[in-house]
Amino acid sequence: MKAIGVFDSGVGGLTVVKELMRQLPREDIIYFGDTARVPYGTKSRETVIRFSIENILFLLKQDVKLICIACNTSSSVAFPAIASHFKVPIIGVIGPGAKEAVYATRNKRIGVIATTGTVKSGAYASRIRQLDPLIKVTSVACPLFVPLAEEGWLDNSVAARVADIYLKPLKKAGVDTLILGCTHYPLLKPVIKKAIGSKVRLIDSARQVAMETKRILQDQGMLNPAARKPRHRFYVSDNPQGFRALARRFLGEPVGNVFKVSHV
Amino acid sequence: MKAIGVFDSGVGGLTVVKELMRQLPREDIIYFGDTARVPYGTKSRETVIRFSIENILFLLKQDVKLICIACNTSSSVAFPAIASHFKVPIIGVIGPGAKEAVYATRNKRIGVIATTGTVKSGAYASRIRQLDPLIKVTSVACPLFVPLAEEGWLDNSVAARVADIYLKPLKKAGVDTLILGCTHYPLLKPVIKKAIGSKVRLIDSARQVAMETKRILQDQGMLNPAARKPRHRFYVSDNPQGFRALARRFLGEPVGNVFKVSHV
Repeated sequence: MKAIGVFDSGVGGLTVVKELMRQLPREDIIYFGDTARVPYGTKSRETVIRFSIENILFLLKQDVKLICIACNTSSSVAFPAIASHFKVPIIGVIGPGAKEAVYATRNKRIGVIATTGTVKSGAYASRIRQLDPLIKVTSVACPLFVPLAEEGWLDNSVAARVADIYLKPLKKAGVDTLILGCTHYPLLKPVIKKAIGSKVRLIDSARQVAMETKRILQDQGMLNPAARKPRHRFYVSDNPQGFRALARRFLGEPVGNVFKVSHV
Repeated sequence: MKAIGVFDSGVGGLTVVKELMRQLPREDIIYFGDTARVPYGTKSRETVIRFSIENILFLLKQDVKLICIACNTSSSVAFPAIASHFKVPIIGVIGPGAKEAVYATRNKRIGVIATTGTVKSGAYASRIRQLDPLIKVTSVACPLFVPLAEEGWLDNSVAARVADIYLKPLKKAGVDTLILGCTHYPLLKPVIKKAIGSKVRLIDSARQVAMETKRILQDQGMLNPAARKPRHRFYVSDNPQGFRALARRFLGEPVGNVFKVSHV
């Protein structure tokens, strides 16, 4: 049986892989992290689309049956432009995250924190408004969160101060639900929770993305029926050693097969 | 007459361009900023070498007479491996910066702040020791300084706190001279000065790099003799609009010709 393909600008998409492993324990997974060109969140629409197409073509060469775009920037900027052109189903993280947030909010005020690229695209806000036009969405770009997470400063005084500054407009807007619109942000949950208040519900899309993947594979009769140990393979465009170390932090278990490729 | 070529991972190399314009006002300059793949400082040696060679080949296609590697990470990681293979003279920023610091220190204790890649390479420390084996060098990687500078948080409480944390070991080491080993760092001079103390001499290599460029062009009879208005052209691999805005901040004057290229 064919594998599920997942790509991200770097290592953050492993939060989606973790959830796929949990909900679809029989499925093979092929992951590609574009660590040579990370980050995507600060780059132009045109470039993010080009990188995303190259990543999709790489996964298609590995003969995958479905592709998850784990990267929020790719999902918001490239997905609408390209997803319908390919034969395999392609799933982004925006739709599933928006759906879960709309389901969770009580006061119809949702906050979105994400990269500059994702916020500029307006993808979360417009998807949420499609689902419920009465919901007020407040979006804030948080460009320092990714480098903080990569530096491992997850819960120190700098992280706390940065979170306070970024989340101030969301607090003021009175949101009761906050979408963590970047795969790195779940690592910063403790300071984000402290800054926004413990009553605000934090949404990351990984769980919903895995549910949608399962639903599509079921609908199309593409689930792997064999009850055998699945194969998980990881490809990166740079620094497989660094990836292996971070992957352990994200997945909570060591990963075996990490290969370096230069697909561009 | 041919132009001087300059490349950097992004916009930071314009500090070198500014100094070249000042010291060599008759020379044409062609700049390439690899804004689609920035930053280099967190990436592997192998990848930084590949990117640097691609950038050099791009500049050679523009028929330049000399190449300045303005990026500290490229200069420390790629320059020693590749510079001698090309016919045109190639200048990195490490040698000139090290020379100026050795000249400036009184107590023979020099600090280096730079990207992870530059610090790992040990390039500054080994160059300084070649010049004076009695000098003690303390190097610290400051991965959050580049995103802080790009966010424009140059002098707020977060920048101050980050600088305090990073510079603590250098204060403890009692350095009297500090190399700003990344082209972005001069933007953060005020908080760096506050954190390390106003008596410590801050060195950025731009001035020395321009002096060495002038010396080589003079020695080889390649200076432009014509007293006419020089041409300055700027190429980037992503987001020329964003580059134009930042370039104004770096150069102190607007830039006209910014072109987008995808050389890879």
